[in-house]
Amino acid sequence: MTVNGEFNHDMRRVPTGEFMTPSRKTNGVGVQAEDTKICVVMVGLPARGKSLIAQKVVRYLHWLSIKAKTFNVGQYRRTNTPNPSADFFDTSNSEGERLRRAAAEAAVNDMCKWFAEGQGLIAILDATNSTKKRRRWIQERCDAEGIETLFVESKCDDEDIIMSNILEVKTTSPDYVGQDPESAAQDFRNRIRNYERVYQTIDEDEFDLTYVKLIDVGKHVIINQIQDYLQSRVVYYLMNLHIRPRSIWLSRHGESQYNLNGKIGGDAELSERGEMYARALPGLVKQSVGDSRKLTVWTSTLRRTIATARFLEFEKLEWKALDELDSGVCDGLTYAEIEERYPDDFKQRDEDKYNYRYLGGESYRDVVIRLEPIIMELERSENILIVTHQAILRCIYAYFMNVPQERSPWMEVPLHTLIKLTPKAYSTQEERLKADIPAVSTFREKGSSAKHQEAA
Amino acid sequence: MTVNGEFNHDMRRVPTGEFMTPSRKTNGVGVQAEDTKICVVMVGLPARGKSLIAQKVVRYLHWLSIKAKTFNVGQYRRTNTPNPSADFFDTSNSEGERLRRAAAEAAVNDMCKWFAEGQGLIAILDATNSTKKRRRWIQERCDAEGIETLFVESKCDDEDIIMSNILEVKTTSPDYVGQDPESAAQDFRNRIRNYERVYQTIDEDEFDLTYVKLIDVGKHVIINQIQDYLQSRVVYYLMNLHIRPRSIWLSRHGESQYNLNGKIGGDAELSERGEMYARALPGLVKQSVGDSRKLTVWTSTLRRTIATARFLEFEKLEWKALDELDSGVCDGLTYAEIEERYPDDFKQRDEDKYNYRYLGGESYRDVVIRLEPIIMELERSENILIVTHQAILRCIYAYFMNVPQERSPWMEVPLHTLIKLTPKAYSTQEERLKADIPAVSTFREKGSSAKHQEAA
Repeated sequence: MTVNGEFNHDMRRVPTGEFMTPSRKTNGVGVQAEDTKICVVMVGLPARGKSLIAQKVVRYLHWLSIKAKTFNVGQYRRTNTPNPSADFFDTSNSEGERLRRAAAEAAVNDMCKWFAEGQGLIAILDATNSTKKRRRWIQERCDAEGIETLFVESKCDDEDIIMSNILEVKTTSPDYVGQDPESAAQDFRNRIRNYERVYQTIDEDEFDLTYVKLIDVGKHVIINQIQDYLQSRVVYYLMNLHIRPRSIWLSRHGESQYNLNGKIGGDAELSERGEMYARALPGLVKQSVGDSRKLTVWTSTLRRTIATARFLEFEKLEWKALDELDSGVCDGLTYAEIEERYPDDFKQRDEDKYNYRYLGGESYRDVVIRLEPIIMELERSENILIVTHQAILRCIYAYFMNVPQERSPWMEVPLHTLIKLTPKAYSTQEERLKADIPAVSTFREKGSSAKHQEAA
Repeated sequence: MTVNGEFNHDMRRVPTGEFMTPSRKTNGVGVQAEDTKICVVMVGLPARGKSLIAQKVVRYLHWLSIKAKTFNVGQYRRTNTPNPSADFFDTSNSEGERLRRAAAEAAVNDMCKWFAEGQGLIAILDATNSTKKRRRWIQERCDAEGIETLFVESKCDDEDIIMSNILEVKTTSPDYVGQDPESAAQDFRNRIRNYERVYQTIDEDEFDLTYVKLIDVGKHVIINQIQDYLQSRVVYYLMNLHIRPRSIWLSRHGESQYNLNGKIGGDAELSERGEMYARALPGLVKQSVGDSRKLTVWTSTLRRTIATARFLEFEKLEWKALDELDSGVCDGLTYAEIEERYPDDFKQRDEDKYNYRYLGGESYRDVVIRLEPIIMELERSENILIVTHQAILRCIYAYFMNVPQERSPWMEVPLHTLIKLTPKAYSTQEERLKADIPAVSTFREKGSSAKHQEAA
């Protein structure tokens, strides 16, 4: 039953003798009815970024505290056929056809079980689903289980993007482990050709389906029959994606006067060593980025990030939304002072750091909400270097690296270190480049109120 | 220059002798560069809901603290031709053609002036803009002024919707003031026919434009070349709209035990009189809604709203996002106690109630952010009755009635009153239905800490 469904006749008598209809609850995010189940069905030829899109949607939903999971039909197929050649995907190969159909059924069965056990709200069925027949079958299976379907087709005729996806697949796909890259690429091209023969794009025949067509991801989008808020939220995210290769660089500001004194918050200047980091940063960036690539630098509106970025010869943008987590009444205090003045709060924060909101300030959960526009704009952008603050960097990092909420506020993100994140189809690659400039460690372990320590 | 534009070569020497590129700032909402200017250009035949859509976008943006304004070409035209007949809109009428073109030019000129004076970020150009030539002209004018264009076409072939729009226009449009309704409707149909003769839908020729096509508003959406976050935000809102006629009903919970004691926050039960209101509400709703219409009831997750709605025989949904503004450390206190214990905070709150965040709690601004999913889902829905709390109701009411931020936290929303809001093309109609059940007034004037008073 959907939120906007028919009047509910399932009334029950209550002690007062009055008629009542039972209420249904929205989930923790306050976004949607508890009983929402959405299957996002990927559609498209190989090398159109489907897996990348699927993984991103799941990461994004996790980051927003919405439980989601990808069911990758290829992974099910690999249990029987770990390294198939292109022939396996030829529709005239009836044994291949049977095994591929069995893999799809196994994936859908596991997905239905996952929903029935109440394990999540959104499942992504990652496969080519390239025929109308296959899509109709999925929709009917889902209908029978009370699962909404949202078909997401990725169409792309940009040869550069396809080739770069092919190159990536041949180096990262489990199908081609240990094989010669050139023959892997050739085989993969043949596999695509086999799919092209039977591929049917979503069209007017399927007007009753809820679907999104992403054409040259991000350029042109067609949306049909969106049914509810959570679907529209996913579609909004999809609208903002692109699949051109790029990297994101993250750095905290250089060591500040407050860092030296162990104080939190504030709008302090850089320390002498922080200043050294600011001067070293252009070299560090050049080393990591190379000469040829364009880059935009984002900072917060606080002095320590602006000062840190000031020698970078790129376009810059200051974002209020990148300002450090607001520590409210604790702004300008050391952890020892906070423990002394607000002992209960200090303890509470340790117990649930993600949800703890400083008096008059913010929680990590609050920060995630205000960072959402940043994440959307990051998705729209290409190469971006963000110079920001510890808590903010943790939240952004958690988004890209799929770090669970309970862990993200405790991650160590040292000063004077440039982090490079490169989204790939099956994961995000990370590199860290440390400047040879000492700084205090601002990492505080659970239960500790020690003044910031000199890093090893 | 756009956020993702070319590397900025406009470097300047700084005192330290290093090269620096100047930073640009994002606006207060942290959403977009300060210098963003977007012209939303409406496209479509008369009676396709263009003005309704334009007004809604402006209201929504104001609610999110983004400055926006509609420039309605019809209003400019009316200064010369207040009550034109359908012939005026015949393209073979060259004098009509000249006057209509002059009106469009006047509107675009005023809009450019408005942007140049830094008065806002988003302008809506509300007119039919039904030919490719006209759209190209607007795009070129905007390009020259550094204004981005976002074309929004509303296409609709649903005769029921068109007829209901025609009926509304004949009764509310300034063009037909004082005229016989039947002949007004006939004339308006002829006017539409004149437009149909020259109407060109947005198509492949215009692939270089940024556009959204809304087909049967809300059912099918085509999006092309969205350029930045603020555009994608507007598009997301448009995606969620429909223009079917409907109403929204708002009610606070019945009087609670806390209301009686003058305490704020908490999760109290209803008072005896609150209980009477709960029992009277189904009759009140029937009186306002009528018998035939379907309705869904939304409540918060707090006991006083659930108890108030419990005798309503409609489908119900509990939303965490509808819970009362979190008053943090002040939860459970009276205003007199707050003034005594937190005198500075009490004063601060009076000075800027919209932005004041209770220690460990929320501000009205925070509430607006968490209510956004509610507003989106409300836009997607048809007839909804919301039983909620004073601050939440003020924010929702402010959205529909376009109440400015500084006023909304001070609005009087009495207990035991059912408010009916009906969105129309040119405004939202309001009716209030008072239950004949006395209750305390929970309205506090600026500077006052008086205990809640018995309402007159």
